[in-house]
Amino acid sequence: MIIVLKPDVDASKQEQLTGWLEEMGVRVHVAVGDYQTVLGLIGNTDNIDADLIESLDIVDSVKRVSESFKTCNRKFHPDDTIVQVGDVKIGGGHFAMIAGPCSVETQEQITGIAKEIKQTGANMLRGGAFKPRTSPYDFQGLKAKGIELLKIARKETGLPIVTEIMSVVDLPLFEDVDVLQVGARNMQNFDLLKELGMLKKPILLKRGLANTLKELLMSAEYIMSNGNEQVILCERGIRTYSDYTRNTLDLAAVPMLKELTHLPVIVDPSHATGISRLVPPMAMAAAAAGADGLIIEVHNDPLHALCDGAQSLTPEEFAKLVPKVLNVREAAWS
Amino acid sequence: MIIVLKPDVDASKQEQLTGWLEEMGVRVHVAVGDYQTVLGLIGNTDNIDADLIESLDIVDSVKRVSESFKTCNRKFHPDDTIVQVGDVKIGGGHFAMIAGPCSVETQEQITGIAKEIKQTGANMLRGGAFKPRTSPYDFQGLKAKGIELLKIARKETGLPIVTEIMSVVDLPLFEDVDVLQVGARNMQNFDLLKELGMLKKPILLKRGLANTLKELLMSAEYIMSNGNEQVILCERGIRTYSDYTRNTLDLAAVPMLKELTHLPVIVDPSHATGISRLVPPMAMAAAAAGADGLIIEVHNDPLHALCDGAQSLTPEEFAKLVPKVLNVREAAWS
Amino acid sequence: MIIVLKPDVDASKQEQLTGWLEEMGVRVHVAVGDYQTVLGLIGNTDNIDADLIESLDIVDSVKRVSESFKTCNRKFHPDDTIVQVGDVKIGGGHFAMIAGPCSVETQEQITGIAKEIKQTGANMLRGGAFKPRTSPYDFQGLKAKGIELLKIARKETGLPIVTEIMSVVDLPLFEDVDVLQVGARNMQNFDLLKELGMLKKPILLKRGLANTLKELLMSAEYIMSNGNEQVILCERGIRTYSDYTRNTLDLAAVPMLKELTHLPVIVDPSHATGISRLVPPMAMAAAAAGADGLIIEVHNDPLHALCDGAQSLTPEEFAKLVPKVLNVREAAWS
Amino acid sequence: MIIVLKPDVDASKQEQLTGWLEEMGVRVHVAVGDYQTVLGLIGNTDNIDADLIESLDIVDSVKRVSESFKTCNRKFHPDDTIVQVGDVKIGGGHFAMIAGPCSVETQEQITGIAKEIKQTGANMLRGGAFKPRTSPYDFQGLKAKGIELLKIARKETGLPIVTEIMSVVDLPLFEDVDVLQVGARNMQNFDLLKELGMLKKPILLKRGLANTLKELLMSAEYIMSNGNEQVILCERGIRTYSDYTRNTLDLAAVPMLKELTHLPVIVDPSHATGISRLVPPMAMAAAAAGADGLIIEVHNDPLHALCDGAQSLTPEEFAKLVPKVLNVREAAWS
Repeated sequence: MIIVLKPDVDASKQEQLTGWLEEMGVRVHVAVGDYQTVLGLIGNTDNIDADLIESLDIVDSVKRVSESFKTCNRKFHPDDTIVQVGDVKIGGGHFAMIAGPCSVETQEQITGIAKEIKQTGANMLRGGAFKPRTSPYDFQGLKAKGIELLKIARKETGLPIVTEIMSVVDLPLFEDVDVLQVGARNMQNFDLLKELGMLKKPILLKRGLANTLKELLMSAEYIMSNGNEQVILCERGIRTYSDYTRNTLDLAAVPMLKELTHLPVIVDPSHATGISRLVPPMAMAAAAAGADGLIIEVHNDPLHALCDGAQSLTPEEFAKLVPKVLNVREAAWS
Repeated sequence: MIIVLKPDVDASKQEQLTGWLEEMGVRVHVAVGDYQTVLGLIGNTDNIDADLIESLDIVDSVKRVSESFKTCNRKFHPDDTIVQVGDVKIGGGHFAMIAGPCSVETQEQITGIAKEIKQTGANMLRGGAFKPRTSPYDFQGLKAKGIELLKIARKETGLPIVTEIMSVVDLPLFEDVDVLQVGARNMQNFDLLKELGMLKKPILLKRGLANTLKELLMSAEYIMSNGNEQVILCERGIRTYSDYTRNTLDLAAVPMLKELTHLPVIVDPSHATGISRLVPPMAMAAAAAGADGLIIEVHNDPLHALCDGAQSLTPEEFAKLVPKVLNVREAAWS
Repeated sequence: MIIVLKPDVDASKQEQLTGWLEEMGVRVHVAVGDYQTVLGLIGNTDNIDADLIESLDIVDSVKRVSESFKTCNRKFHPDDTIVQVGDVKIGGGHFAMIAGPCSVETQEQITGIAKEIKQTGANMLRGGAFKPRTSPYDFQGLKAKGIELLKIARKETGLPIVTEIMSVVDLPLFEDVDVLQVGARNMQNFDLLKELGMLKKPILLKRGLANTLKELLMSAEYIMSNGNEQVILCERGIRTYSDYTRNTLDLAAVPMLKELTHLPVIVDPSHATGISRLVPPMAMAAAAAGADGLIIEVHNDPLHALCDGAQSLTPEEFAKLVPKVLNVREAAWS
Repeated sequence: MIIVLKPDVDASKQEQLTGWLEEMGVRVHVAVGDYQTVLGLIGNTDNIDADLIESLDIVDSVKRVSESFKTCNRKFHPDDTIVQVGDVKIGGGHFAMIAGPCSVETQEQITGIAKEIKQTGANMLRGGAFKPRTSPYDFQGLKAKGIELLKIARKETGLPIVTEIMSVVDLPLFEDVDVLQVGARNMQNFDLLKELGMLKKPILLKRGLANTLKELLMSAEYIMSNGNEQVILCERGIRTYSDYTRNTLDLAAVPMLKELTHLPVIVDPSHATGISRLVPPMAMAAAAAGADGLIIEVHNDPLHALCDGAQSLTPEEFAKLVPKVLNVREAAWS
């Protein structure tokens, strides 16, 4: 940590600060400049509150030099993490194509979609059983029954299943789920993250509505520091003043995250745009940007879908998209 | 709901849509304009997915005309809700002055601060026992012990206590807490909100990092629709590209919320700015904007505070601030 | 325009509004719903101020149904506009690869870069002569001399030149420039746009820092409604709370804009990210998203570049990138 | 400037960087930490591009320690600047109450409003003659004629006039205007700012749509570094994802700016909210936050106003508001 003092600071105040810092267990290196004095802290600064120091009268600004994310940091783990889900691998050159409806509705629906997307290139099945909805009056998902239907679809197709968990009290229901998804609204539900850190299952962690990359990595750190290192990050659009799309898909987050961390990074173009016509170009763009996978909403009857129909592809549209995505990936990264 | 069709729409497609809508239980009123046809839906449109309809080929745009928040809507409940906490009232002309440290640290600390702020005008005590922190390596609060210390401080001063709950599994620990706070990061933790809706206790609901007013009201609706109508809303700053303050305090949210809902609205100038020097002007501005109360961080030793010291007032600064806030309120609203 | 009245509106107030609207030259169609009355305005509503009407006591909300952009609207001009610059075409299947340094510095520099990038696939040369800088103390560009150097580079290589204009008073200096660029900070400098609308030259219009797509289209409309229909739109990142990249590149804007307008849309991955390592993945992603071209900063000596070195590619990096971009484009869109 | 190197940097690369920095005219102080080496630059670093250095392989991060704004910096000019406009003073304890219609429409209108607001407490008259409109098809203002009408209103009332300039070519028309306003969209129209820096007249500089405080100060610096130190800053709301108000009024900017600069800071609650009902609470809040003045839209016939009627107060509403604002200011700051 580096502390820049204001010009012409009172010597006794500076000593008081230095004393307090040393009491906190760090050594203080003083560099006197022409205009300003700079204190360099050497040792473990994890317990020192940078905001508090920045608020002191004599301090101009503070800068942390060591990064606060450790377990997910590529600096300490240069090789890509490969997350394994059944036979499917994600990361390290392996591409995940996760597809399925927003909500699980009926057995026919989920099994029907699962069969179609398996044939056309999906290697995992998504489907919401517990649905986070802005309004308490909107459809909240089939819950336990939805998970049962997903398992039937898995049995029929062999596709591993990905579904969202909203509360630690529901954990027993997810015992036989392959990948547990943490939704954007729960990215900083720290109690949930800690519990998921004690599982031995892959976690798909979505970036929050307005969270920075560092916050996303710190949330991964909550899971990983509890022992579960199988985390898949997911960019799904952030909230801005955008007037035509639901969110703003931040694709530069993909190469940036892959530089900062060894974890796989996938993209959700369906929630990012909220418009099915924009899903194919954004899916291809995500592949070109270096994503390790995609999670795409596919529904066989968008008009009657109980939620999010507007952003779902039909199975036919999905079938056309898959080879294009793979060709783009090949063109960009081989 | 109003559906504007694109120009020159195919008649059979229009009929197909109309048919589907009628099947969903609404009547459809067709108005043919010079350029475009407009469908007005009459009846209960709660089950109709506006996004899905907007995604259809033949549809130009969709507009909901009835608001999705009901229980908290001022239209259906014109009088201010007054939330009662012990002897303290909030809303309907009653002003809450909630103060205390970010985190409960020791018995001396919390009781000491409680006594000082009580003398100088606080009517409730805040203090974090469970702390949501971006990093798993940062101090997470004293948890159960913190709540016990708050109760001791309450016993010594008579001040009702406000503290944050992060998970439904901790609910039993909060049985004797006066006001349960839902933090910004949990504003859309819908499972937590539903549980809080079954309590008979006031809930202080903070606006999320990047949530709209409508989303805040819908989250209140999650609590209220489960039976608990004692909800206090709190504006605490939203995330923007601001370069000097931690968040951007959205004070216009105060009069706007008070127009939309009958619930009391308070302001947290400490988290909004993250800088203790800005707390007094923003506290006075909040009172001038019509807030029903303030929640302010006060710490007797900011340099040693375990978290958020940078934004805490000293008890002396708080003592100077209180009469100014009350005078501003008097000048603006009497 | 559709006006939704509040429930239980006073009949005389409604008549007063209807009268005023008819006075403004539109017909008013009244639809009475179960809860609310809706007025549909038929005729030319361009002179009616929607915000004013929305502010009236008796009005709940207002919605415009006809779009305010006309000349650039794809509805009225379904075919792609192809902008021609010398032998180079942009749009309608033609791809622009514009490259060059942020600032023109010396004759050797600009001519040297121009030769290198021409060999490796650029078909236009960019270089700043007038530089918009946040600080008045930063380098402001070589101005007239910079334009002269660009012309020399054009003579040596045959590459058309693109350079930014900041003020109408400089227009005479740009007489022999091929494409005039309007920077993000000037996207709503309406007086400049009007003047450019009277030229017979292509205009490269960059999206502003925090402007919506509609505002970008309305700014194009300022140029086009004055007679100059050769406008190229450019997405260059918008301002958000992003912590690692300078701006957030909004790639979904590309397919969305191409749906809304017939104008060509290009992408600037250099300014969007501010980090040269992120330029190649974002350039490929832009091609995959359907962009009609790229504008990329290339500098032969980033360490000594007078500005924006951090985001410049070297000519070698550019040479490697070009075939990848073209392959991605082929894979995605052929 | 402080440069933090990555761990385990190659010595020859570090020397190369140090050599280049010394060539740029600064001394380099090397501090070797346990983990990382830090370079402290001593001397004038204005010509060193921090972004470029941050982009180098061996560099972890860079921090500027000296602020880039000089002339407007309170550090170098601790006393408040008082801007004098005729008999009216702004700043240093003097409060400006600027009011008037969005657009000048007719002589009766502007003179009528001017008389009413003068009687009820305004000390300056605002009115737009040149109007920046998103759409080229919207009313663009009366231009030269509007300025003539403002002068007539000034003659009748004695109120100094404030009106917006959009282009340097219009400067001759503004010779007899008292205060020239730079609108939000032109905050970074640097050529305009430079020209205004050569005048001997107060400039009212509005914060841009999505600009940071530092950028606002740097734009003031463009005016001041050219010789004109009479600059009034104006907070008018920034663009966010707000759903009910047009912009988000950032009132914490007021005390923050007043800490950073000696210039007066006023607030525009009309454009910030876009809703006349929110103007009174926000005007009072601005006074409580420490603003040096207000600029408020007042119109005698909002329904017929040619633009922005929705955010205008009537003269009666304004008359009620003025004493409240003054009382709040007295309560907060005396």
